[in-house]
Amino acid sequence: MSALLDTIATIRREVCALHAELTRYELVVWTAGNVSARVPGHDLMVIKPSGVSYDALTPELMVVTDLQGVPVAGDGDGAWGNPDLSPSSDTAAHAYVYRNMPDVGGVVHTHSTYATAWAARGEPIPCVLTMMGDEFGGTIPVGPFALIGDDSIGRGIVDTLRASHSPAVLMQNHGPFTIGKDARSAVKAAVMCEEVARTVHISRQLGEPLPIDAGQIESLYSRYQNVYGR
Amino acid sequence: MSALLDTIATIRREVCALHAELTRYELVVWTAGNVSARVPGHDLMVIKPSGVSYDALTPELMVVTDLQGVPVAGDGDGAWGNPDLSPSSDTAAHAYVYRNMPDVGGVVHTHSTYATAWAARGEPIPCVLTMMGDEFGGTIPVGPFALIGDDSIGRGIVDTLRASHSPAVLMQNHGPFTIGKDARSAVKAAVMCEEVARTVHISRQLGEPLPIDAGQIESLYSRYQNVYGR
Amino acid sequence: MSALLDTIATIRREVCALHAELTRYELVVWTAGNVSARVPGHDLMVIKPSGVSYDALTPELMVVTDLQGVPVAGDGDGAWGNPDLSPSSDTAAHAYVYRNMPDVGGVVHTHSTYATAWAARGEPIPCVLTMMGDEFGGTIPVGPFALIGDDSIGRGIVDTLRASHSPAVLMQNHGPFTIGKDARSAVKAAVMCEEVARTVHISRQLGEPLPIDAGQIESLYSRYQNVYGR
Amino acid sequence: MSALLDTIATIRREVCALHAELTRYELVVWTAGNVSARVPGHDLMVIKPSGVSYDALTPELMVVTDLQGVPVAGDGDGAWGNPDLSPSSDTAAHAYVYRNMPDVGGVVHTHSTYATAWAARGEPIPCVLTMMGDEFGGTIPVGPFALIGDDSIGRGIVDTLRASHSPAVLMQNHGPFTIGKDARSAVKAAVMCEEVARTVHISRQLGEPLPIDAGQIESLYSRYQNVYGR
Repeated sequence: MSALLDTIATIRREVCALHAELTRYELVVWTAGNVSARVPGHDLMVIKPSGVSYDALTPELMVVTDLQGVPVAGDGDGAWGNPDLSPSSDTAAHAYVYRNMPDVGGVVHTHSTYATAWAARGEPIPCVLTMMGDEFGGTIPVGPFALIGDDSIGRGIVDTLRASHSPAVLMQNHGPFTIGKDARSAVKAAVMCEEVARTVHISRQLGEPLPIDAGQIESLYSRYQNVYGR
Repeated sequence: MSALLDTIATIRREVCALHAELTRYELVVWTAGNVSARVPGHDLMVIKPSGVSYDALTPELMVVTDLQGVPVAGDGDGAWGNPDLSPSSDTAAHAYVYRNMPDVGGVVHTHSTYATAWAARGEPIPCVLTMMGDEFGGTIPVGPFALIGDDSIGRGIVDTLRASHSPAVLMQNHGPFTIGKDARSAVKAAVMCEEVARTVHISRQLGEPLPIDAGQIESLYSRYQNVYGR
Repeated sequence: MSALLDTIATIRREVCALHAELTRYELVVWTAGNVSARVPGHDLMVIKPSGVSYDALTPELMVVTDLQGVPVAGDGDGAWGNPDLSPSSDTAAHAYVYRNMPDVGGVVHTHSTYATAWAARGEPIPCVLTMMGDEFGGTIPVGPFALIGDDSIGRGIVDTLRASHSPAVLMQNHGPFTIGKDARSAVKAAVMCEEVARTVHISRQLGEPLPIDAGQIESLYSRYQNVYGR
Repeated sequence: MSALLDTIATIRREVCALHAELTRYELVVWTAGNVSARVPGHDLMVIKPSGVSYDALTPELMVVTDLQGVPVAGDGDGAWGNPDLSPSSDTAAHAYVYRNMPDVGGVVHTHSTYATAWAARGEPIPCVLTMMGDEFGGTIPVGPFALIGDDSIGRGIVDTLRASHSPAVLMQNHGPFTIGKDARSAVKAAVMCEEVARTVHISRQLGEPLPIDAGQIESLYSRYQNVYGR
């Protein structure tokens, strides 16, 4: 049991620290974005508390839930977290991903500006940059319009990502969700998603970007995933 | 009387500190934006002094006025503030809102770039983002063109906001005013107003965003207001 | 003489410190912008040295020149500055302004992005924002295309500003120059010039901003100049 | 030998420190950009390690390679660097430039947003700004589409830059590479390349920028290169 507590303490620190990357790259305003991580080997996850500003986050405030998104009460000595805090209002979507994609170790949700602008038009981002071939292996797809309250957001994320190389999905009228083998990889995908959303948007403002051949995209993606892993 | 002085001292600190959110989210340049708060239970408000740069703001410099916008002289021992400072040149508009909307505890005015760009065209921001449904419950409306000097700005704000769910109004050719149950809520509305103004603008640059059904907007708004209150 | 040295020391500190506002508001990159101030009552000015990065500026590095732009040697004890530094390559333009506009106490030059974008099209910025009426009293005009090397830049600035309320001129294909009663006012005009250049640009991307009646612009301008002076 | 070690130590510090300019001017996200410098008089270069975030860079982590891009093992006492780190995945392109352009002392690669947006359309940036005449002496050219893995990126850079005044080339669908007499000059070119890419892009959003006469561009370029050297 003490090994699990140590693992949770480490993951709390990592998840807390990774939120600073969301503000550094200006992917979020106020409290509108969240990072979670799976606790490897357990049906548990660690996620941002609801309504707490990024400046005020500490590892102790991160919330531990089961993979239904229900906070875990712990043993009353505080090791499981502050019982007064609710997990992020997006917890159900994160939990659905962990239940249905066993290789995923981290999930990130933001409303980053350019990715959300594509999502509002329901338009996938075409792969016209070599760095997009490297990271996303093709277009960044759009997921369905879905309201919060049941599994429809989580199901939309999982169904869309299973049909794609991309670790990012743009949920229609909503914003991006990204996944990774761990929380850091999912944050990297969120940062790169906004970067390519912005660059391709700006490129298209003055004309049509040149397409990259599908075989060349596949070649970029294979090389990059082999070199860097994922 | 000492309880009122304590309350005012607390509100001064809050109003002063909230101006840092305006600069952090780049809603203002130089001295062109201001936050105020009602003193609960009294016909008083606390507001930014005129012409003082954000770096130089301290709680002591905040100006206490009555709800006509007239600085309150106090008892001469400095507890009411520095008699050499005038309140913000937008004080009359803030005061009009407090006189006419008794539930409002905070008011914010900025010239944030994207919101002001919509205001210059006199065009309301359509509700095409789920976070806009959450926070604004529909479109962000435009208020009339009005010159400083009498109650016409304040009246334009109040008349427009009374006809809307939105805590933000875009005053034509001028910029946004936002309200909240307290000053922090009004600042959050100013931050979110600029964020949705920017995202919807960028989305529309390359096509028409997909509309969200009115019933679904109402559902987003009800849920969010019940969970988070306002 | 000692009073003059004290004055120069004060102005060096002010001019040095004001460069931090150019970087804070992202009006400049690398070394591409400069602030100067007149030494009141003397045919002298203080200006940024050429090719020194903003991080490395200190009051001692500011260069004192006469109003022909020639560095003043001083008395050899260092009080007049470092003889190894040249004044900014834009010194001739600043000096021309001081020789020909006796009420001007400060001049700023930047290549701030949006103002320079209007300048590259040779298009004045229309007055469609109340804050533009306040600060600029109408459109921000364009000055002629002029090459560095003689008085043609300075003459273009002065001829254009004399025909306008505006303290800012957009030199064609080049960038903005701004003036003020002192260096701080000129920096404020540079900050506000970029802000309105950006906001009006963004507004026009999705349609035509609503015009403001000329009489109302005059009314905004008169009130603002009387309240704040300039 | 000790003189060479001292030189390498100095260059490590410079190359490390210059990466901070890439983040300061927001030319890079995550780990997607790199600076290198030639070791003068030796067939050696110093370059960023692969996959290390900018915050974590220290002079000791910089990788020394030969001009084929192969890390130099050193003498085992750590003076040549950490044997566990690979050089940037763009090392082959940097090395090709040093082998084929003997006057080049520094190379920079980024995916800076606006320059990459032009690169995605395969469109050179027209010279419509005086600062572009100064720094680039004409248009910023586009290089061929090329995949990583052999010399095709390096050859595309060198062939394009040899036919141009410009120290920057936009590799199609990829991003900018810049050169300079030393690493600092190459970083300056990267900063200025993004600045003119952004300003010309924004200018063209609302119409066509006014051209600058070829003779005047040549005159700007000659004067600037003589005054500032390069």
